[in-house]
Amino acid sequence: MKKLINDPGDVVRESLAGFAAAHSDILKVCFDPVYVVRADAPVTGKVGIISGGGSGHEPLHGGFVGQGMLDAACPGQVFTSPSPDQMEAATSAVDGGAGVLHIVKNYTGDVMNFEMAAELCEASGTQVEAVIINDDVAVQDSLYTAGRRGTGTTVMAEKICGAAAARGYDLSRVAALGQKVNDKGRSMGMALSSCTVPAAGKPTFELGEGEIEMGVGIHGEPGRERMPLQPVRALAAYMAETILSDLPFRGGDRVIAMVSGLGGTPPLELYIVYGELELILRARQIEVSRRLVGNYITSLDMAGCSISLVQADDELLSLWDDPVHTPALRWGT
Amino acid sequence: MKKLINDPGDVVRESLAGFAAAHSDILKVCFDPVYVVRADAPVTGKVGIISGGGSGHEPLHGGFVGQGMLDAACPGQVFTSPSPDQMEAATSAVDGGAGVLHIVKNYTGDVMNFEMAAELCEASGTQVEAVIINDDVAVQDSLYTAGRRGTGTTVMAEKICGAAAARGYDLSRVAALGQKVNDKGRSMGMALSSCTVPAAGKPTFELGEGEIEMGVGIHGEPGRERMPLQPVRALAAYMAETILSDLPFRGGDRVIAMVSGLGGTPPLELYIVYGELELILRARQIEVSRRLVGNYITSLDMAGCSISLVQADDELLSLWDDPVHTPALRWGT
Repeated sequence: MKKLINDPGDVVRESLAGFAAAHSDILKVCFDPVYVVRADAPVTGKVGIISGGGSGHEPLHGGFVGQGMLDAACPGQVFTSPSPDQMEAATSAVDGGAGVLHIVKNYTGDVMNFEMAAELCEASGTQVEAVIINDDVAVQDSLYTAGRRGTGTTVMAEKICGAAAARGYDLSRVAALGQKVNDKGRSMGMALSSCTVPAAGKPTFELGEGEIEMGVGIHGEPGRERMPLQPVRALAAYMAETILSDLPFRGGDRVIAMVSGLGGTPPLELYIVYGELELILRARQIEVSRRLVGNYITSLDMAGCSISLVQADDELLSLWDDPVHTPALRWGT
Repeated sequence: MKKLINDPGDVVRESLAGFAAAHSDILKVCFDPVYVVRADAPVTGKVGIISGGGSGHEPLHGGFVGQGMLDAACPGQVFTSPSPDQMEAATSAVDGGAGVLHIVKNYTGDVMNFEMAAELCEASGTQVEAVIINDDVAVQDSLYTAGRRGTGTTVMAEKICGAAAARGYDLSRVAALGQKVNDKGRSMGMALSSCTVPAAGKPTFELGEGEIEMGVGIHGEPGRERMPLQPVRALAAYMAETILSDLPFRGGDRVIAMVSGLGGTPPLELYIVYGELELILRARQIEVSRRLVGNYITSLDMAGCSISLVQADDELLSLWDDPVHTPALRWGT
């Protein structure tokens, strides 16, 4: 295993320390229990927005903490759910009196722990709602998930709920928007290589020289099928077709699109993927109204990418365009 | 070779097509000859800022085209200098009557071609100045370079010259600022793995399982030494020491710092590197006033990172903070 780390057991803590040092104008990191929180939290009268999950998917979620997006993020160890006490502490820290929304990717540990945290918070008087993101069309049920996995649509839900909260919308309205984004969002990923979990020290799975994992999960969970490497034109078409037929998306739709690298794939290749995706969508009269291309939800050092599409309307696009100031997403400020 | 591409010969053109589709609000890509240019070029009365070089280092340079940074970028084939006709066409396209600055990384082909283009442009009445970036402290002379190679400081030079031009500074003043950034900037990189050039189809160099290349060039050129993999604490200390003693940087200095991934290294690891770097600098009473952590100057899919430091003063920091709106760097807009 070759990584820019010290001791494998210190990876998350040390990365968070560097992250905190780099972005102290926006956020701070608390270490006992561990959470990333807006420097100016809580914002009185505003709904707090929290997410969290295992580390190894950066910038998700800590990189989306800041004005107009998340108020806090709870990072677990690599690919491991954070614990209820992290979520409870983060929820308390961002409670400005208007309640707190938990945005939770659908993994069994995350869902269970966020539920326990919500109960603890409500017992002490904080109103909590949760939105479960389950946008990954690759497989039904998976290694760590009952039902569909939650992946890239989480980024859109965090942005749009964050904007809604910043506008002063109340908790039920913000939660309904999160649900709407999830209902209208679909994702799929594929891997050219495995990732290597630092504590394991070896690749999570093995792929042959000419093989890819289509529909891979963000922790290296198996996808739909192992298939031969093909030109990206064919791979993008496979992913797009699976995503589009699932909702289904239709001609005349507008979408927010994301092509995210999984950590080991450079911008040069991601833009080729995006180019193919836009050609496919244009041929179906689907308009890409907004897009992200880069590392937004990664799987450690895995080579590959994911595609996410959210069917958008004026309301979602307007919230998308609102100012955001986080380490990984910034505009209008 | 496993990459998200179609035909290896189409990589640059297809990536640029996707890039143009993704960022048509900011820029357009001309294909004959090839250059990326601000959508609103030329800006009358403003000094034009151009850079360019081989592809494979994205977001450098095209990702820095936009308001407050580059007016145009000339991408060559992967790791291959663009040609004088690209540079001449780009220079003409951004000539708003106040002259054009060429920001050139010190590689023999780039320098020669930008010189030829400058002569052609001056013959047709456009005033051109050039700044050569040669900030890489790893080696004196290299595979494609007489003198030091040009790497990460290019990003700072492009931002600061772009801001100066946007303020309306004249050509000689903008060029002097570019020279100042180069004079005060130093960089060094290291590789955990080789990159693979698509047309070659195999790794550019071989590294043993426990080996790294310290001081690697952004095209995979040999560095200072091949050494055993060590904790990132030791690797960061080696790079920082080499950089700091070269200028030299001194206690009380303020710096703009960049930790750039080389394409195959994820954010989780880059923030560990940044954390180590900031500890080293703090111990020497050097203050990081501004920083970038992410993929800014890559080497295709190489795993590893580079560190760049620019000794900053009020003038440089003020220009750094000016608004910028490009695909890869955005604030204040």
